[in-house]
Amino acid sequence: MIEHHFRVALHDTDAAGVLFFAHLFRHAHDAYEAMMARIGWPVDGLIRGRQIGLPLVHVEADFRRPLRHGDQVDVVIALKELGERRFSLTYGFFIGDQEVATALSVHVAIDPRTGKSQALPTSLISALSARSG
Amino acid sequence: MIEHHFRVALHDTDAAGVLFFAHLFRHAHDAYEAMMARIGWPVDGLIRGRQIGLPLVHVEADFRRPLRHGDQVDVVIALKELGERRFSLTYGFFIGDQEVATALSVHVAIDPRTGKSQALPTSLISALSARSG
Amino acid sequence: MIEHHFRVALHDTDAAGVLFFAHLFRHAHDAYEAMMARIGWPVDGLIRGRQIGLPLVHVEADFRRPLRHGDQVDVVIALKELGERRFSLTYGFFIGDQEVATALSVHVAIDPRTGKSQALPTSLISALSARSG
Amino acid sequence: MIEHHFRVALHDTDAAGVLFFAHLFRHAHDAYEAMMARIGWPVDGLIRGRQIGLPLVHVEADFRRPLRHGDQVDVVIALKELGERRFSLTYGFFIGDQEVATALSVHVAIDPRTGKSQALPTSLISALSARSG
Repeated sequence: MIEHHFRVALHDTDAAGVLFFAHLFRHAHDAYEAMMARIGWPVDGLIRGRQIGLPLVHVEADFRRPLRHGDQVDVVIALKELGERRFSLTYGFFIGDQEVATALSVHVAIDPRTGKSQALPTSLISALSARSG
Repeated sequence: MIEHHFRVALHDTDAAGVLFFAHLFRHAHDAYEAMMARIGWPVDGLIRGRQIGLPLVHVEADFRRPLRHGDQVDVVIALKELGERRFSLTYGFFIGDQEVATALSVHVAIDPRTGKSQALPTSLISALSARSG
Repeated sequence: MIEHHFRVALHDTDAAGVLFFAHLFRHAHDAYEAMMARIGWPVDGLIRGRQIGLPLVHVEADFRRPLRHGDQVDVVIALKELGERRFSLTYGFFIGDQEVATALSVHVAIDPRTGKSQALPTSLISALSARSG
Repeated sequence: MIEHHFRVALHDTDAAGVLFFAHLFRHAHDAYEAMMARIGWPVDGLIRGRQIGLPLVHVEADFRRPLRHGDQVDVVIALKELGERRFSLTYGFFIGDQEVATALSVHVAIDPRTGKSQALPTSLISALSARSG
Protein backbone atom coordinates (compact mmCIF):
# COMPACT_ATOMS: atom_id res chain seq x y z
CA MET A 1 0.00 0.00 0.00
CA ILE A 2 1.27 3.44 -0.95
CA GLU A 3 1.49 5.44 2.27
CA HIS A 4 2.92 8.61 0.88
CA HIS A 5 3.76 10.38 -2.33
CA PHE A 6 6.19 13.18 -2.91
CA ARG A 7 7.78 15.10 -5.73
CA VAL A 8 11.52 15.62 -5.34
CA ALA A 9 11.75 19.33 -4.53
CA LEU A 10 14.60 21.70 -5.29
CA HIS A 11 15.51 21.71 -1.59
CA ASP A 12 15.85 17.91 -1.67
CA THR A 13 18.64 18.12 -4.20
CA ASP A 14 22.27 19.17 -3.88
CA ALA A 15 24.97 20.60 -6.13
CA ALA A 16 25.57 17.12 -7.55
CA GLY A 17 22.08 17.43 -9.05
CA VAL A 18 20.45 14.58 -7.10
CA LEU A 19 18.54 14.06 -3.84
CA PHE A 20 20.87 14.55 -0.87
CA PHE A 21 20.75 11.15 0.83
CA ALA A 22 19.72 12.34 4.31
CA HIS A 23 16.51 13.83 2.89
CA LEU A 24 15.33 10.33 1.98
CA PHE A 25 14.89 9.76 5.72
CA ARG A 26 12.78 12.90 6.02
CA HIS A 27 10.46 11.46 3.37
CA ALA A 28 10.53 8.02 5.03
CA HIS A 29 9.44 9.65 8.26
CA ASP A 30 6.64 11.51 6.47
CA ALA A 31 5.43 8.13 5.21
CA TYR A 32 5.71 6.70 8.74
CA GLU A 33 3.67 9.60 10.13
CA ALA A 34 1.03 9.07 7.41
CA MET A 35 0.84 5.35 8.25
CA MET A 36 0.64 5.92 12.00
CA ALA A 37 -2.18 8.45 11.50
CA ARG A 38 -4.06 5.94 9.32
CA ILE A 39 -3.87 3.18 11.91
CA GLY A 40 -5.08 5.55 14.61
CA TRP A 41 -1.76 6.34 16.30
CA PRO A 42 -0.81 9.81 15.00
CA VAL A 43 2.74 10.66 16.06
CA ASP A 44 1.82 14.19 17.13
CA GLY A 45 -0.77 12.72 19.50
CA LEU A 46 1.81 10.28 20.88
CA ILE A 47 4.29 13.05 21.59
CA ARG A 48 1.66 15.27 23.21
CA GLY A 49 0.19 12.41 25.23
CA ARG A 50 3.55 11.60 26.83
CA GLN A 51 2.45 8.05 27.65
CA ILE A 52 4.67 6.34 25.12
CA GLY A 53 7.54 7.29 22.85
CA LEU A 54 8.66 5.29 19.82
CA PRO A 55 12.17 6.58 19.09
CA LEU A 56 14.32 5.16 16.34
CA VAL A 57 17.26 3.08 17.51
CA HIS A 58 18.44 2.01 14.06
CA VAL A 59 17.86 3.18 10.50
CA GLU A 60 19.41 2.32 7.18
CA ALA A 61 18.90 3.01 3.51
CA ASP A 62 20.08 1.67 0.16
CA PHE A 63 20.22 3.85 -2.90
CA ARG A 64 19.87 2.00 -6.22
CA ARG A 65 19.72 4.97 -8.52
CA PRO A 66 19.77 8.74 -7.99
CA LEU A 67 16.52 10.62 -7.42
CA ARG A 68 16.31 13.85 -9.41
CA HIS A 69 14.49 17.16 -9.06
CA GLY A 70 10.90 16.69 -10.21
CA ASP A 71 10.81 12.88 -9.83
CA GLN A 72 7.43 11.61 -8.58
CA VAL A 73 8.01 9.08 -5.82
CA ASP A 74 5.65 6.63 -4.08
CA VAL A 75 6.57 5.27 -0.66
CA VAL A 76 5.37 1.83 0.40
CA ILE A 77 5.77 0.62 4.00
CA ALA A 78 5.76 -2.97 5.23
CA LEU A 79 5.99 -4.29 8.77
CA LYS A 80 9.16 -6.36 9.05
CA GLU A 81 9.30 -7.40 12.70
CA LEU A 82 6.99 -6.92 15.64
CA GLY A 83 8.16 -7.75 19.15
CA GLU A 84 6.93 -6.97 22.61
CA ARG A 85 8.99 -3.83 22.93
CA ARG A 86 10.03 -2.96 19.40
CA PHE A 87 9.06 -3.11 15.75
CA SER A 88 10.74 -2.51 12.43
CA LEU A 89 9.43 -1.19 9.15
CA THR A 90 10.76 -1.38 5.62
CA TYR A 91 10.22 1.39 3.10
CA GLY A 92 10.25 1.06 -0.68
CA PHE A 93 10.65 4.21 -2.79
CA PHE A 94 9.23 3.78 -6.29
CA ILE A 95 9.35 5.88 -9.43
CA GLY A 96 6.68 4.19 -11.50
CA ASP A 97 7.44 0.46 -11.17
CA GLN A 98 11.09 0.90 -10.38
CA GLU A 99 12.25 0.67 -6.79
CA VAL A 100 14.94 3.34 -6.60
CA ALA A 101 15.70 3.17 -2.87
CA THR A 102 14.79 1.22 0.24
CA ALA A 103 14.97 2.06 3.93
CA LEU A 104 14.54 0.36 7.27
CA SER A 105 13.60 1.79 10.67
CA VAL A 106 13.67 0.09 14.07
CA HIS A 107 11.54 1.67 16.80
CA VAL A 108 11.49 0.86 20.50
CA ALA A 109 8.76 1.70 22.98
CA ILE A 110 9.85 3.91 25.84
CA ASP A 111 8.31 5.82 28.67
CA PRO A 112 9.02 9.41 27.53
CA ARG A 113 9.29 10.67 31.12
CA THR A 114 12.05 8.23 32.10
CA GLY A 115 13.47 7.13 28.75
CA LYS A 116 13.14 3.50 29.90
CA SER A 117 12.00 0.72 27.58
CA GLN A 118 8.39 -0.41 27.97
CA ALA A 119 6.04 -2.89 26.32
CA LEU A 120 4.17 -1.84 23.19
CA PRO A 121 0.46 -1.29 23.96
CA THR A 122 -1.64 -4.29 22.85
CA SER A 123 -3.82 -2.05 20.72
CA LEU A 124 -0.77 -0.72 18.85
CA ILE A 125 0.46 -4.29 18.29
CA SER A 126 -2.94 -5.14 16.82
CA ALA A 127 -3.00 -2.06 14.63
CA LEU A 128 0.50 -2.75 13.31
CA SER A 129 -0.25 -6.46 12.76
CA ALA A 130 -3.33 -5.61 10.73
CA ARG A 131 -1.01 -3.57 8.55
CA SER A 132 1.29 -6.47 7.73
CA GLY A 133 -1.39 -8.34 5.78
CA MET B 1 -6.23 29.54 -5.10
CA ILE B 2 -4.65 26.94 -2.85
CA GLU B 3 -1.37 25.96 -4.47
CA HIS B 4 -0.13 23.56 -1.89
CA HIS B 5 -1.17 21.74 1.24
CA PHE B 6 1.02 20.24 3.93
CA ARG B 7 0.76 18.72 7.36
CA VAL B 8 3.32 20.03 9.84
CA ALA B 9 5.68 17.06 10.22
CA LEU B 10 7.75 16.10 13.24
CA HIS B 11 10.87 17.26 11.38
CA ASP B 12 9.29 20.70 10.88
CA THR B 13 9.14 21.25 14.62
CA ASP B 14 11.83 22.00 17.18
CA ALA B 15 12.36 21.51 20.91
CA ALA B 16 10.12 24.54 21.59
CA GLY B 17 7.28 22.40 20.19
CA VAL B 18 6.49 24.54 17.15
CA LEU B 19 7.52 24.82 13.49
CA PHE B 20 11.13 26.02 13.21
CA PHE B 21 10.73 29.27 11.28
CA ALA B 22 13.15 28.50 8.45
CA HIS B 23 11.08 25.48 7.43
CA LEU B 24 8.21 27.82 6.50
CA PHE B 25 10.34 28.88 3.54
CA ARG B 26 10.80 25.25 2.49
CA HIS B 27 7.02 24.93 2.34
CA ALA B 28 6.69 28.31 0.58
CA HIS B 29 9.12 27.06 -2.06
CA ASP B 30 7.15 23.82 -2.45
CA ALA B 31 4.08 25.98 -3.13
CA TYR B 32 6.10 28.05 -5.61
CA GLU B 33 7.24 24.91 -7.40
CA ALA B 34 3.65 23.65 -7.54
CA MET B 35 2.46 26.97 -9.00
CA MET B 36 5.26 27.14 -11.56
CA ALA B 37 4.50 23.58 -12.69
CA ARG B 38 0.81 24.48 -13.08
CA ILE B 39 1.50 27.50 -15.26
CA GLY B 40 3.81 25.45 -17.46
CA TRP B 41 7.17 26.58 -16.08
CA PRO B 42 8.34 23.73 -13.83
CA VAL B 43 11.41 24.78 -11.86
CA ASP B 44 13.24 21.51 -12.52
CA GLY B 45 12.84 22.11 -16.24
CA LEU B 46 14.14 25.68 -15.87
CA ILE B 47 17.24 24.52 -14.03
CA ARG B 48 17.95 21.75 -16.53
CA GLY B 49 17.27 23.99 -19.52
CA ARG B 50 19.88 26.51 -18.37
CA GLN B 51 18.27 29.29 -20.46
CA ILE B 52 16.94 31.24 -17.52
CA GLY B 53 17.32 31.24 -13.76
CA LEU B 54 14.91 32.87 -11.31
CA PRO B 55 16.90 33.16 -8.08
CA LEU B 56 15.50 34.79 -4.99
CA VAL B 57 16.99 38.16 -4.12
CA HIS B 58 14.73 38.91 -1.18
CA VAL B 59 12.42 36.92 1.07
CA GLU B 60 10.53 37.68 4.22
CA ALA B 61 7.98 36.09 6.50
CA ASP B 62 5.66 37.12 9.31
CA PHE B 63 4.53 34.66 11.95
CA ARG B 64 1.18 35.43 13.58
CA ARG B 65 0.81 32.32 15.63
CA PRO B 66 2.89 29.16 16.08
CA LEU B 67 2.37 26.18 13.77
CA ARG B 68 2.27 22.87 15.63
CA HIS B 69 2.99 19.26 14.77
CA GLY B 70 0.00 17.82 12.92
CA ASP B 71 -1.47 21.16 11.82
CA GLN B 72 -3.01 21.02 8.33
CA VAL B 73 -1.87 24.04 6.34
CA ASP B 74 -3.04 25.48 3.00
CA VAL B 75 -0.72 27.77 1.06
CA VAL B 76 -2.18 30.44 -1.22
CA ILE B 77 0.05 32.42 -3.60
CA ALA B 78 -0.69 35.79 -5.18
CA LEU B 79 1.35 37.77 -7.68
CA LYS B 80 2.36 41.05 -6.05
CA GLU B 81 4.56 42.76 -8.64
CA LEU B 82 5.58 41.90 -12.16
CA GLY B 83 8.31 43.86 -13.87
CA GLU B 84 10.46 43.36 -16.93
CA ARG B 85 13.23 41.60 -15.04
CA ARG B 86 11.68 40.60 -11.74
CA PHE B 87 8.50 39.55 -9.99
CA SER B 88 7.34 39.11 -6.44
CA LEU B 89 4.89 36.69 -4.87
CA THR B 90 3.04 36.73 -1.57
CA TYR B 91 2.19 33.56 0.30
CA GLY B 92 -0.61 33.09 2.83
CA PHE B 93 -0.47 30.09 5.17
CA PHE B 94 -3.91 29.11 6.44
CA ILE B 95 -5.13 26.71 9.09
CA GLY B 96 -8.81 26.58 8.28
CA ASP B 97 -9.84 30.21 7.82
CA GLN B 98 -7.08 31.63 9.97
CA GLU B 99 -4.01 33.08 8.31
CA VAL B 100 -1.18 31.99 10.63
CA ALA B 101 1.77 33.23 8.59
CA THR B 102 2.61 35.16 5.44
CA ALA B 103 5.68 35.26 3.25
CA LEU B 104 7.06 37.23 0.33
CA SER B 105 9.59 36.25 -2.34
CA VAL B 106 11.25 38.45 -4.94
CA HIS B 107 12.73 36.70 -7.98
CA VAL B 108 14.96 38.14 -10.69
CA ALA B 109 15.58 36.68 -14.12
CA ILE B 110 19.20 35.84 -14.83
CA ASP B 111 21.22 34.05 -17.45
CA PRO B 112 22.41 31.02 -15.43
CA ARG B 113 25.65 30.78 -17.43
CA THR B 114 26.76 34.32 -16.62
CA GLY B 115 24.68 35.23 -13.56
CA LYS B 116 23.70 38.48 -15.34
CA SER B 117 20.19 39.93 -15.14
CA GLN B 118 17.98 39.39 -18.19
CA ALA B 119 14.41 40.16 -19.24
CA LEU B 120 11.65 37.76 -18.23
CA PRO B 121 10.41 35.80 -21.27
CA THR B 122 7.13 37.23 -22.61
CA SER B 123 5.43 33.87 -22.24
CA LEU B 124 6.37 33.69 -18.55
CA ILE B 125 5.06 37.24 -18.03
CA SER B 126 1.76 36.17 -19.63
CA ALA B 127 1.56 33.00 -17.54
CA LEU B 128 2.24 34.90 -14.31
CA SER B 129 -0.23 37.69 -15.24
CA ALA B 130 -2.98 35.16 -15.86
CA ARG B 131 -2.34 33.99 -12.32
CA SER B 132 -2.95 37.39 -10.77
CA GLY B 133 -6.54 37.75 -12.01
CA MET C 1 32.11 40.88 15.85
CA ILE C 2 32.04 37.55 14.06
CA GLU C 3 29.55 35.36 15.92
CA HIS C 4 29.70 32.33 13.74
CA HIS C 5 31.59 30.79 10.85
CA PHE C 6 30.48 28.08 8.49
CA ARG C 7 31.56 26.40 5.31
CA VAL C 8 28.78 25.96 2.76
CA ALA C 9 28.14 22.21 2.88
CA LEU C 10 26.87 19.96 0.12
CA HIS C 11 23.51 19.74 1.90
CA ASP C 12 23.24 23.55 1.85
CA THR C 13 23.25 23.59 -1.94
CA ASP C 14 20.62 22.60 -4.48
CA ALA C 15 20.52 21.41 -8.07
CA ALA C 16 21.08 24.99 -9.25
CA GLY C 17 24.54 24.67 -7.68
CA VAL C 18 24.11 27.34 -4.99
CA LEU C 19 22.94 27.60 -1.38
CA PHE C 20 19.20 26.99 -1.13
CA PHE C 21 17.92 30.26 0.30
CA ALA C 22 16.05 28.83 3.29
CA HIS C 23 19.29 27.35 4.63
CA LEU C 24 20.66 30.87 5.14
CA PHE C 25 18.16 31.19 7.99
CA ARG C 26 19.45 27.97 9.56
CA HIS C 27 22.92 29.52 9.61
CA ALA C 28 21.53 32.86 10.87
CA HIS C 29 19.91 30.99 13.74
CA ASP C 30 23.17 29.17 14.50
CA ALA C 31 24.81 32.59 14.78
CA TYR C 32 21.96 33.79 17.00
CA GLU C 33 22.38 30.76 19.27
CA ALA C 34 26.13 31.40 19.46
CA MET C 35 25.55 35.05 20.39
CA MET C 36 22.92 34.24 23.01
CA ALA C 37 25.22 31.67 24.61
CA ARG C 38 28.03 34.26 24.70
CA ILE C 39 25.91 36.86 26.47
CA GLY C 40 24.78 34.30 29.02
CA TRP C 41 21.32 33.49 27.62
CA PRO C 42 21.75 30.13 25.83
CA VAL C 43 18.62 29.31 23.84
CA ASP C 44 18.55 25.69 25.01
CA GLY C 45 18.48 26.93 28.61
CA LEU C 46 15.66 29.36 27.79
CA ILE C 47 13.55 26.62 26.24
CA ARG C 48 14.16 24.23 29.14
CA GLY C 49 13.56 26.94 31.75
CA ARG C 50 10.11 27.72 30.37
CA GLN C 51 10.13 31.19 31.96
CA ILE C 52 10.49 33.10 28.72
CA GLY C 53 10.28 32.37 25.03
CA LEU C 54 11.71 34.59 22.29
CA PRO C 55 9.96 33.45 19.13
CA LEU C 56 10.51 35.10 15.78
CA VAL C 57 7.62 37.18 14.50
CA HIS C 58 9.36 38.50 11.40
CA VAL C 59 12.42 37.54 9.38
CA GLU C 60 13.84 38.65 6.08
CA ALA C 61 16.90 38.17 3.96
CA ASP C 62 18.57 39.76 0.96
CA PHE C 63 20.82 37.78 -1.34
CA ARG C 64 23.47 39.82 -3.17
CA ARG C 65 25.35 37.01 -4.79
CA PRO C 66 25.05 33.21 -4.72
CA LEU C 67 26.84 31.20 -2.02
CA ARG C 68 28.57 28.13 -3.40
CA HIS C 69 29.61 24.74 -2.02
CA GLY C 70 32.84 25.17 -0.08
CA ASP C 71 32.52 28.93 0.48
CA GLN C 72 33.81 30.04 3.89
CA VAL C 73 31.31 32.41 5.46
CA ASP C 74 31.52 34.68 8.52
CA VAL C 75 28.33 35.85 10.20
CA VAL C 76 28.24 39.18 12.02
CA ILE C 77 25.26 40.16 14.19
CA ALA C 78 24.25 43.68 15.26
CA LEU C 79 21.43 44.78 17.52
CA LYS C 80 19.04 46.91 15.49
CA GLU C 81 16.22 47.72 17.87
CA LEU C 82 15.59 46.99 21.52
CA GLY C 83 12.19 47.63 23.04
CA GLU C 84 10.44 46.60 26.22
CA ARG C 85 8.94 43.50 24.70
CA ARG C 86 10.87 42.90 21.51
CA PHE C 87 14.24 43.24 19.83
CA SER C 88 15.58 42.91 16.32
CA LEU C 89 18.94 41.75 15.02
CA THR C 90 20.67 42.21 11.68
CA TYR C 91 22.98 39.59 10.23
CA GLY C 92 25.74 40.13 7.72
CA PHE C 93 27.14 37.15 5.81
CA PHE C 94 30.68 37.75 4.58
CA ILE C 95 32.98 35.86 2.25
CA GLY C 96 36.26 37.61 2.96
CA ASP C 97 35.43 41.32 2.85
CA GLN C 98 32.40 40.94 0.64
CA GLU C 99 28.95 40.98 2.19
CA VAL C 100 27.08 38.38 0.14
CA ALA C 101 23.80 38.33 2.08
CA THR C 102 22.03 40.06 4.95
CA ALA C 103 19.21 38.98 7.21
CA LEU C 104 16.97 40.45 9.88
CA SER C 105 15.11 38.79 12.73
CA VAL C 106 12.50 40.27 15.07
CA HIS C 107 11.93 38.49 18.37
CA VAL C 108 9.18 39.06 20.93
CA ALA C 109 9.21 37.99 24.55
CA ILE C 110 6.40 35.63 25.50
CA ASP C 111 5.39 33.49 28.43
CA PRO C 112 5.86 30.02 26.91
CA ARG C 113 3.05 28.54 29.02
CA THR C 114 0.41 30.99 27.76
CA GLY C 115 1.91 32.32 24.54
CA LYS C 116 1.18 35.87 25.79
CA SER C 117 3.58 38.76 25.28
CA GLN C 118 5.68 39.77 28.29
CA ALA C 119 8.40 42.29 29.10
CA LEU C 120 12.01 41.38 28.34
CA PRO C 121 13.92 40.69 31.57
CA THR C 122 16.08 43.67 32.57
CA SER C 123 19.18 41.50 32.62
CA LEU C 124 18.57 40.38 29.03
CA ILE C 125 18.05 44.01 27.97
CA SER C 126 21.40 44.87 29.58
CA ALA C 127 23.15 41.92 27.96
CA LEU C 128 21.77 42.80 24.53
CA SER C 129 22.58 46.51 24.97
CA ALA C 130 26.17 45.71 25.85
CA ARG C 131 26.31 43.91 22.52
CA SER C 132 25.29 46.93 20.49
CA GLY C 133 28.17 49.13 21.60
CA MET D 1 40.87 11.52 15.22
CA ILE D 2 38.08 14.04 15.71
CA GLU D 3 37.06 15.21 12.25
CA HIS D 4 34.25 17.46 13.22
CA HIS D 5 32.55 19.05 16.19
CA PHE D 6 29.06 20.44 16.44
CA ARG D 7 26.64 21.74 19.02
CA VAL D 8 23.12 20.36 18.68
CA ALA D 9 21.17 23.37 17.38
CA LEU D 10 17.52 24.20 17.90
CA HIS D 11 16.85 23.24 14.26
CA ASP D 12 18.36 19.79 14.89
CA THR D 13 15.71 19.00 17.47
CA ASP D 14 12.02 18.16 17.13
CA ALA D 15 8.88 18.45 19.24
CA ALA D 16 9.97 15.33 21.18
CA GLY D 17 12.85 17.47 22.47
CA VAL D 18 15.71 15.49 20.90
CA LEU D 19 17.74 15.48 17.70
CA PHE D 20 15.57 14.39 14.76
CA PHE D 21 17.36 11.26 13.56
CA ALA D 22 17.81 12.28 9.92
CA HIS D 23 19.88 15.29 10.97
CA LEU D 24 22.55 12.94 12.33
CA PHE D 25 23.34 12.12 8.71
CA ARG D 26 23.72 15.82 7.89
CA HIS D 27 26.35 16.04 10.63
CA ALA D 28 27.96 12.77 9.48
CA HIS D 29 28.27 14.26 6.01
CA ASP D 30 29.78 17.46 7.41
CA ALA D 31 32.41 15.26 9.10
CA TYR D 32 32.96 13.39 5.82
CA GLU D 33 33.43 16.69 3.96
CA ALA D 34 35.90 17.85 6.64
CA MET D 35 37.87 14.59 6.34
CA MET D 36 37.93 14.66 2.54
CA ALA D 37 39.16 18.26 2.57
CA ARG D 38 41.93 17.28 5.02
CA ILE D 39 43.19 14.43 2.85
CA GLY D 40 43.22 16.67 -0.20
CA TRP D 41 39.97 15.56 -1.85
CA PRO D 42 37.44 18.30 -1.04
CA VAL D 43 33.95 17.21 -2.08
CA ASP D 44 33.14 20.57 -3.66
CA GLY D 45 36.19 20.19 -5.89
CA LEU D 46 35.14 16.65 -6.83
CA ILE D 47 31.66 17.77 -7.83
CA ARG D 48 32.98 20.73 -9.83
CA GLY D 49 35.71 18.65 -11.48
CA ARG D 50 33.20 16.14 -12.83
CA GLN D 51 35.89 13.46 -13.18
CA ILE D 52 34.65 11.28 -10.37
CA GLY D 53 31.60 11.06 -8.14
CA LEU D 54 31.44 9.21 -4.83
CA PRO D 55 27.72 8.77 -4.17
CA LEU D 56 26.41 6.91 -1.17
CA VAL D 57 24.84 3.54 -1.94
CA HIS D 58 24.21 2.54 1.67
CA VAL D 59 24.03 4.32 5.00
CA GLU D 60 22.97 3.31 8.46
CA ALA D 61 22.94 4.66 11.97
CA ASP D 62 22.42 3.41 15.51
CA PHE D 63 21.16 5.68 18.26
CA ARG D 64 22.21 4.70 21.78
CA ARG D 65 20.84 7.67 23.62
CA PRO D 66 19.04 10.85 22.59
CA LEU D 67 21.01 13.95 21.61
CA ARG D 68 19.60 17.12 23.14
CA HIS D 69 19.65 20.81 22.25
CA GLY D 70 22.99 22.28 23.32
CA ASP D 71 24.89 18.97 23.48
CA GLN D 72 28.49 19.29 22.32
CA VAL D 73 29.30 16.43 19.95
CA ASP D 74 32.60 15.18 18.51
CA VAL D 75 32.56 13.07 15.35
CA VAL D 76 35.29 10.50 14.74
CA ILE D 77 35.63 8.75 11.37
CA ALA D 78 37.39 5.45 10.66
CA LEU D 79 37.94 3.70 7.36
CA LYS D 80 36.15 0.36 7.48
CA GLU D 81 36.65 -1.13 4.02
CA LEU D 82 38.57 -0.02 0.96
CA GLY D 83 38.05 -1.80 -2.34
CA GLU D 84 38.88 -1.01 -5.94
CA ARG D 85 35.59 0.70 -6.61
CA ARG D 86 34.12 1.43 -3.20
CA PHE D 87 34.93 2.29 0.39
CA SER D 88 33.06 2.47 3.65
CA LEU D 89 33.46 4.71 6.66
CA THR D 90 32.24 4.41 10.23
CA TYR D 91 31.33 7.42 12.32
CA GLY D 92 31.31 7.67 16.09
CA PHE D 93 29.40 10.51 17.76
CA PHE D 94 30.73 11.30 21.22
CA ILE D 95 29.50 13.51 24.05
CA GLY D 96 32.56 13.60 26.25
CA ASP D 97 33.68 9.96 26.48
CA GLN D 98 30.30 8.49 25.76
CA GLU D 99 29.52 7.23 22.27
CA VAL D 100 25.89 8.26 21.80
CA ALA D 101 25.45 7.22 18.17
CA THR D 102 27.29 5.53 15.32
CA ALA D 103 26.86 5.65 11.57
CA LEU D 104 28.16 3.90 8.47
CA SER D 105 28.43 5.12 4.89
CA VAL D 106 29.31 3.13 1.77
CA HIS D 107 30.54 5.12 -1.24
CA VAL D 108 31.08 3.92 -4.80
CA ALA D 109 33.18 5.59 -7.44
CA ILE D 110 31.27 6.61 -10.54
CA ASP D 111 31.82 8.60 -13.69
CA PRO D 112 29.43 11.54 -13.02
CA ARG D 113 28.76 12.00 -16.75
CA THR D 114 27.48 8.44 -17.25
CA GLY D 115 26.63 7.29 -13.73
CA LYS D 116 28.70 4.12 -14.39
CA SER D 117 30.93 2.56 -11.75
CA GLN D 118 34.66 3.24 -12.10
CA ALA D 119 37.86 2.41 -10.21
CA LEU D 120 38.90 4.66 -7.33
CA PRO D 121 41.93 6.79 -8.31
CA THR D 122 45.16 5.35 -6.84
CA SER D 123 45.93 8.62 -5.12
CA LEU D 124 42.56 8.60 -3.35
CA ILE D 125 43.14 4.99 -2.26
CA SER D 126 46.49 6.06 -0.80
CA ALA D 127 45.00 9.07 0.93
CA LEU D 128 42.19 7.01 2.46
CA SER D 129 44.60 4.22 3.50
CA ALA D 130 46.83 6.69 5.29
CA ARG D 131 43.74 7.65 7.25
CA SER D 132 43.09 4.15 8.51
CA GLY D 133 46.43 3.76 10.27
